[in-house]
Amino acid sequence: MARFGKKRVIVVGGNAAGMTAASRLLRLDPEAEVTILERSAHISYSICGASYYLEGLIPRVEDLVAFTPETLWKERRIQARTEWEATELRLSRREVECRDRRTGLSERLPFDNLVLATGYHPLTGSVAGAEHPAVIKISQLEDVIRLKRFLEERRPRSAVIVGGGYIGLNSAEALRKRGLSVRVLERDEQIFRAVDPDIAALVEKECSGAGIEISCFAPASAIVFEGDHPAGVVAGGTSYPAELVVVDVGVAPSVDLASQAGLRIGASGAIAVSPRMETSQDGVYAAGNCAESIHWITRRAVTSALGTHAVKQGRVAGENIAGLRSEFPGVLQTSITRFFSLSVARTGLNEREARQFGFDFAAVSVTSPTRAGYFPPKEKVAVKLLCDRKTGKLLGAQMAGPSWSAKQIDVAAAAITAGLTLEQVAQMDLAYSPPHAPLWDPLQVAANAALRQLRR
Amino acid sequence: MARFGKKRVIVVGGNAAGMTAASRLLRLDPEAEVTILERSAHISYSICGASYYLEGLIPRVEDLVAFTPETLWKERRIQARTEWEATELRLSRREVECRDRRTGLSERLPFDNLVLATGYHPLTGSVAGAEHPAVIKISQLEDVIRLKRFLEERRPRSAVIVGGGYIGLNSAEALRKRGLSVRVLERDEQIFRAVDPDIAALVEKECSGAGIEISCFAPASAIVFEGDHPAGVVAGGTSYPAELVVVDVGVAPSVDLASQAGLRIGASGAIAVSPRMETSQDGVYAAGNCAESIHWITRRAVTSALGTHAVKQGRVAGENIAGLRSEFPGVLQTSITRFFSLSVARTGLNEREARQFGFDFAAVSVTSPTRAGYFPPKEKVAVKLLCDRKTGKLLGAQMAGPSWSAKQIDVAAAAITAGLTLEQVAQMDLAYSPPHAPLWDPLQVAANAALRQLRR
Repeated sequence: MARFGKKRVIVVGGNAAGMTAASRLLRLDPEAEVTILERSAHISYSICGASYYLEGLIPRVEDLVAFTPETLWKERRIQARTEWEATELRLSRREVECRDRRTGLSERLPFDNLVLATGYHPLTGSVAGAEHPAVIKISQLEDVIRLKRFLEERRPRSAVIVGGGYIGLNSAEALRKRGLSVRVLERDEQIFRAVDPDIAALVEKECSGAGIEISCFAPASAIVFEGDHPAGVVAGGTSYPAELVVVDVGVAPSVDLASQAGLRIGASGAIAVSPRMETSQDGVYAAGNCAESIHWITRRAVTSALGTHAVKQGRVAGENIAGLRSEFPGVLQTSITRFFSLSVARTGLNEREARQFGFDFAAVSVTSPTRAGYFPPKEKVAVKLLCDRKTGKLLGAQMAGPSWSAKQIDVAAAAITAGLTLEQVAQMDLAYSPPHAPLWDPLQVAANAALRQLRR
Repeated sequence: MARFGKKRVIVVGGNAAGMTAASRLLRLDPEAEVTILERSAHISYSICGASYYLEGLIPRVEDLVAFTPETLWKERRIQARTEWEATELRLSRREVECRDRRTGLSERLPFDNLVLATGYHPLTGSVAGAEHPAVIKISQLEDVIRLKRFLEERRPRSAVIVGGGYIGLNSAEALRKRGLSVRVLERDEQIFRAVDPDIAALVEKECSGAGIEISCFAPASAIVFEGDHPAGVVAGGTSYPAELVVVDVGVAPSVDLASQAGLRIGASGAIAVSPRMETSQDGVYAAGNCAESIHWITRRAVTSALGTHAVKQGRVAGENIAGLRSEFPGVLQTSITRFFSLSVARTGLNEREARQFGFDFAAVSVTSPTRAGYFPPKEKVAVKLLCDRKTGKLLGAQMAGPSWSAKQIDVAAAAITAGLTLEQVAQMDLAYSPPHAPLWDPLQVAANAALRQLRR
């Protein structure tokens, strides 16, 4: 490993984790030679912004892209090869075999350090026809571009979304805002399983109120085609006609390359890594949604599809390659998303997860004003807390409310990170003024309610 | 102390702390007989809402009032006597001597427990004429009502505000929004000393941009009168004419009653209390802005003028009287306020305070987008962090930005409460989505910048 001269680093995957690893490394070690291999045509784009582009709030697809290979080289001295696919990792030789997807030309690139940031790919589950290229799965910028073009050229009037998760619902919203009639088919008893049924009910109400038809207990079995285009979805014996079908039935970490090279894959299905984001092979790192994360509460390895984890892990990988000692502590699966006017957030464990891991917990939900009672506009936020009956510690939180109110989830995330008890949360010195909060912050209203329940 | 029958409790002061103590006690012990003595004509009002009423955003003064004595009795079975003043505490006899301010009639009320929640009063410093009743000091609802009436009846065109603190600046904003020409005279080198000069500069820019004239190094020495009304203020040899003068040169805890009764007054000038909010006399509690608080970082006793502390302390007092064992852990002086479109927040120590207490600290300021770069509208928040060079722990934070962005101060408050290091703050799992935050939350952008500085 000890070489003289410049460190050669290859990064496989040019989005959140890969870009951050490369940038962080170059900042700490400007001499390093970093090459990013990205199989798609774009690097450093925000797939989280896709639905805002689809609905038209963000006018140009380029707005979702932070760097092109040209600007990346110019501004950060990182070489990015787009439409280059890593086809084999020859770890013993410290080489990556890669292929130009346009020409078919192969090349072997030597490395001192390797970062795998291959992300995730959408699953299609048991839905017959879901693999068909005309059925939309959204995981890459190309998917978004193709969908937008389809919307503009074919002007479909109806869409069926298979799966009521984050991507499915965000797509549903964008399509609805474009005037399509939209139906979401959800296999399970509730949409948006990131949160508990009571909070998901608020999401359902918001989406239904905006004209989206939502069917639960509706497991899609097949997509029906007319010629080359989807014409509908069959679910539970019913046929739902649609000119556009979007499938979002989950994602899985992309680990083929790593697995074929003999790197250890964890029980979660993602690449096993140390807290330094190093794989089972010295000097080979994995970061982002292809790598495992440790859940801060359960200490189990989990997968993640969140950009926040990707950038933090990428940063840790970049720092370790540069010679710092840096560790990624773990995740709480904290997330927030907006459905029409309702923002929904979660952190830590939800009820299903807390049960699964055998916690004896209390769960309390409250609805609190977001501001002083007299301060317009009058709005409310729902706050749900889960807390460990044995230790009194906060285990999880969920919030749903207008504007930024649910971003207060971060305070719960900080409290869980630090192992604070409900008692401590209720007494924390949080900020008040009439436009920003009530005298008792909604999180503390919920903490006090939970304390009452615990004392019973 | 052990009596049979109902517990008789007297609460002196009918606002945040007193109301909360009474309500909490009644909730836990519905048999208790609680009497609130309030020297002014109103109970349970929000003085924090005063400026919004003055500017006209909140139409009726009654909107600032949560309960009248009638509704308080009806809904919570708490007796409140307004315009009744407690004139003497006879602690050995367990009696309060009080007087009806309208009739002059005196009465002695026996108690088992007493709660002092006498709040604070405005100071007038060394400004000659500031005591004059036509010079506005804002600490009670009556002051606000009188000022509003003056504005409507006399339609002044100009105002001088003596003191650029929270109340001064909020009053300035309300008056400016009503069309007055407004000047703020600040004795010191900066307005709004709750925050450091660099953050205060943002406040000054916001207020100046809205047309408020701000003069620093302008110590007001005298108020000039024409007949019964102020006609201007003299400061540093210059005379500033004005048809309205508001003085906000600080507040002090109202401790006369306590002090005359021999209760221990702390070095801070407020009533000394245990963590259970009990004074030097068994069974006699003090809560809110008349009582001392322990600063969570310095462990020194401090005074507070914040409603958030008042309600939490009132709650603790009420719980202890009801027989629970409850403690108030301390304060971080966390606050947020809005000046025009800029919200400004702080928690923990600012630079002046950190120096005063001998910390070896690093201070870092960053400006970060509040949302994903491509998500409209493009707005920024300033985040400043102070951190202990020895322990790496966060000591304080300040934020200034639009809308709710500065409410993220609460995450810093949670981190300080828990003793998290900057490293831990930078790695916390905070919530992201394009409308709510960038991938790196502004707090974490600042934490990473501070870490870079610490490593130097």
